[in-house]
Amino acid sequence: MDAPSPVSPRFRELAGQLAAQVRELAALGWTPATSSNFSLRLDERHLVITISGRDKSRLGVDDLMVVDLDGKAVGSSHRPSAETLLHTQLYRRLPEVGCVLHTHSRTQTVASRLYCGAGGVRLAGYELLKAFHGNDTHESEVIVPVLPNSQDMATLAAHVDVLFDGGPLWGYLIDGHGLYAWGRDLAEARRHLDAFDFLLGCELDLCLLRAGR
Amino acid sequence: MDAPSPVSPRFRELAGQLAAQVRELAALGWTPATSSNFSLRLDERHLVITISGRDKSRLGVDDLMVVDLDGKAVGSSHRPSAETLLHTQLYRRLPEVGCVLHTHSRTQTVASRLYCGAGGVRLAGYELLKAFHGNDTHESEVIVPVLPNSQDMATLAAHVDVLFDGGPLWGYLIDGHGLYAWGRDLAEARRHLDAFDFLLGCELDLCLLRAGR
Amino acid sequence: MDAPSPVSPRFRELAGQLAAQVRELAALGWTPATSSNFSLRLDERHLVITISGRDKSRLGVDDLMVVDLDGKAVGSSHRPSAETLLHTQLYRRLPEVGCVLHTHSRTQTVASRLYCGAGGVRLAGYELLKAFHGNDTHESEVIVPVLPNSQDMATLAAHVDVLFDGGPLWGYLIDGHGLYAWGRDLAEARRHLDAFDFLLGCELDLCLLRAGR
Amino acid sequence: MDAPSPVSPRFRELAGQLAAQVRELAALGWTPATSSNFSLRLDERHLVITISGRDKSRLGVDDLMVVDLDGKAVGSSHRPSAETLLHTQLYRRLPEVGCVLHTHSRTQTVASRLYCGAGGVRLAGYELLKAFHGNDTHESEVIVPVLPNSQDMATLAAHVDVLFDGGPLWGYLIDGHGLYAWGRDLAEARRHLDAFDFLLGCELDLCLLRAGR
Repeated sequence: MDAPSPVSPRFRELAGQLAAQVRELAALGWTPATSSNFSLRLDERHLVITISGRDKSRLGVDDLMVVDLDGKAVGSSHRPSAETLLHTQLYRRLPEVGCVLHTHSRTQTVASRLYCGAGGVRLAGYELLKAFHGNDTHESEVIVPVLPNSQDMATLAAHVDVLFDGGPLWGYLIDGHGLYAWGRDLAEARRHLDAFDFLLGCELDLCLLRAGR
Repeated sequence: MDAPSPVSPRFRELAGQLAAQVRELAALGWTPATSSNFSLRLDERHLVITISGRDKSRLGVDDLMVVDLDGKAVGSSHRPSAETLLHTQLYRRLPEVGCVLHTHSRTQTVASRLYCGAGGVRLAGYELLKAFHGNDTHESEVIVPVLPNSQDMATLAAHVDVLFDGGPLWGYLIDGHGLYAWGRDLAEARRHLDAFDFLLGCELDLCLLRAGR
Repeated sequence: MDAPSPVSPRFRELAGQLAAQVRELAALGWTPATSSNFSLRLDERHLVITISGRDKSRLGVDDLMVVDLDGKAVGSSHRPSAETLLHTQLYRRLPEVGCVLHTHSRTQTVASRLYCGAGGVRLAGYELLKAFHGNDTHESEVIVPVLPNSQDMATLAAHVDVLFDGGPLWGYLIDGHGLYAWGRDLAEARRHLDAFDFLLGCELDLCLLRAGR
Repeated sequence: MDAPSPVSPRFRELAGQLAAQVRELAALGWTPATSSNFSLRLDERHLVITISGRDKSRLGVDDLMVVDLDGKAVGSSHRPSAETLLHTQLYRRLPEVGCVLHTHSRTQTVASRLYCGAGGVRLAGYELLKAFHGNDTHESEVIVPVLPNSQDMATLAAHVDVLFDGGPLWGYLIDGHGLYAWGRDLAEARRHLDAFDFLLGCELDLCLLRAGR
């Protein structure tokens, strides 16, 4: 199979869709200070991913590049996001995954710090649990694991690998850092991301409101 | 009477008005992760309602459909919102109702969880109580009932039916879920929705601020 | 002096400026559910004021009308805002006042309820106190009085009259209701309004944060 | 060297870039009530800075002027920001600085008041610490000093001078006032500003959430 070209119509179409989505997330304040990174599966062996350090509020097609499943740049001399390994891990391990979104909203960062000691956040009793693929009732629960942060991607990836042994998973938090969420396509990944952020926000509000009672 | 056609000018006019309103509510963050549903009365026996699972931030005329007062699709093979029965119940029971708006703001969801045990939220002493049709003073009170959540719409509808025995009602919360609000037309339903969300937000803030004193 | 015509170029110019400002305030969420009202001085004996009950997020020139200093409609069969008397009181009593803005932000409403018992909110030690006309240092204080709410405008106006005996005043809160702010022109009234809302918000945050310590 | 002209293409280019950035910050609510001030280095001896008292949400090229490193107006009869000395101090002392941004977000103001007694805010354990130039790990800490406020710029500047003896610094808070942040260029100064505001917001949230436990 030929390596996909970064000027191919398909690259430009996917990159355009992803960039538009990223600009929306930036407008919500979820990508502060050039943080956060995003990818879409291009084909079985390649993905489109954000170039490191770009301003997400102004992201365009030229701020995206192609890497293979080992995280190696294809047809580009740019450096992909420093956390590329956490993206490729998901595409390699879960063949149905088509999109990975990693953001740093204030809610996500605060929740990660508050619940890191407990190892995760338990979400239960919310109608919005139905937003997660495969869930069809509020009478279920979703655990959002919180991993300790590390600048060593292999260490983080090893922690993530262990999580998958625990059953279906739509996302995880990294302490003091942010949220990884994914889905079969861009729309589903965004739906999962929005649901996580919303429900983590509810949990923080309830934590405060119940403490005062 | 002929069944209304989903391509009739009146359908498209009402659907266009409702879709524009829904995009505004989505921009406020009140419809996270494809949640929430919305309807307008089309005639005595039919309503315009959102098709299930559509992204509310991009809602257009083609994301709306016609159902009759039994919730049966008319002139469409799409599936209407899973909560259609809660809409048709209001149109059947209250002939003056012209619009039903159901949203999931963070404020609404958190308030529903916090006050579910008490059965409702008491709103009193606010000038904005005058936003509710028929109220002309802040020296009144409005109770927002909170129902337990259920995936069985008939169970929820039976709970709602009991509420109407208690007097005039402009809306209710469902636990862990969101708010239903309605009015004689789109503008009034939106005014009621905005007033509920604002006043529930004030109650949450005051709950926190008074606890710390 | 002839009564000013609602179709005069000067009316339309001022009404256009005021409507644009009101739409900005509505976009901030400070005018929920058709609440709030706004005016600009047209000449020594007349003002431009919002017609009662209009949606502030879509306010246009045709949603404004002329009243005289007694609150009587001039050249219009519309009903001016129910709180017109609180506007005319300020224009009559303070000849330098050119604009009155009355909003209902969540911060304003919550602060009014929390501090009503104390009679007012003391703002001290903030650089932004310099935003109030005549103040040139943070080493000063501004008291924002909180009046009990009433549906009788004469009762409210009598309470306001007493406040002016206490010295210079740029605004007041009404309990469970919102904020009145004014200035010599539209820009100054808006600057005062923004400064009040910001500083009341800081006070609420600090009230919570210090309680937890 | 000739004094730079305020009508030179380079002035207009830099002023246009800075004005666009300021309008973005105003839209975030970080410049309430005409507060806040902003500058860009024009050459070794001059900077572009905001004229005093202008509305930041509508800032244009004509709301900016040139001053030299002593804060003296060049080619303009306007008055530069009252805090010009705090800008020129940074450009004089740190030759690599190309941009200084001073804002008043609610988060910044509240944090300044809460932590003034402690002399500063300690930020540690956050991935976003990597947003600060020279930092490449979350396993570090950044102290944001909080200075007492003063209307005397020489007093404030003397306090700032002492701070530089403590090591690298990307910003400081002034009590009851706001944040100064800077960088080698506009993009870096904005990245630092965003990171400070985000991390101060996380600290305030965690302060509340941990108090309730």
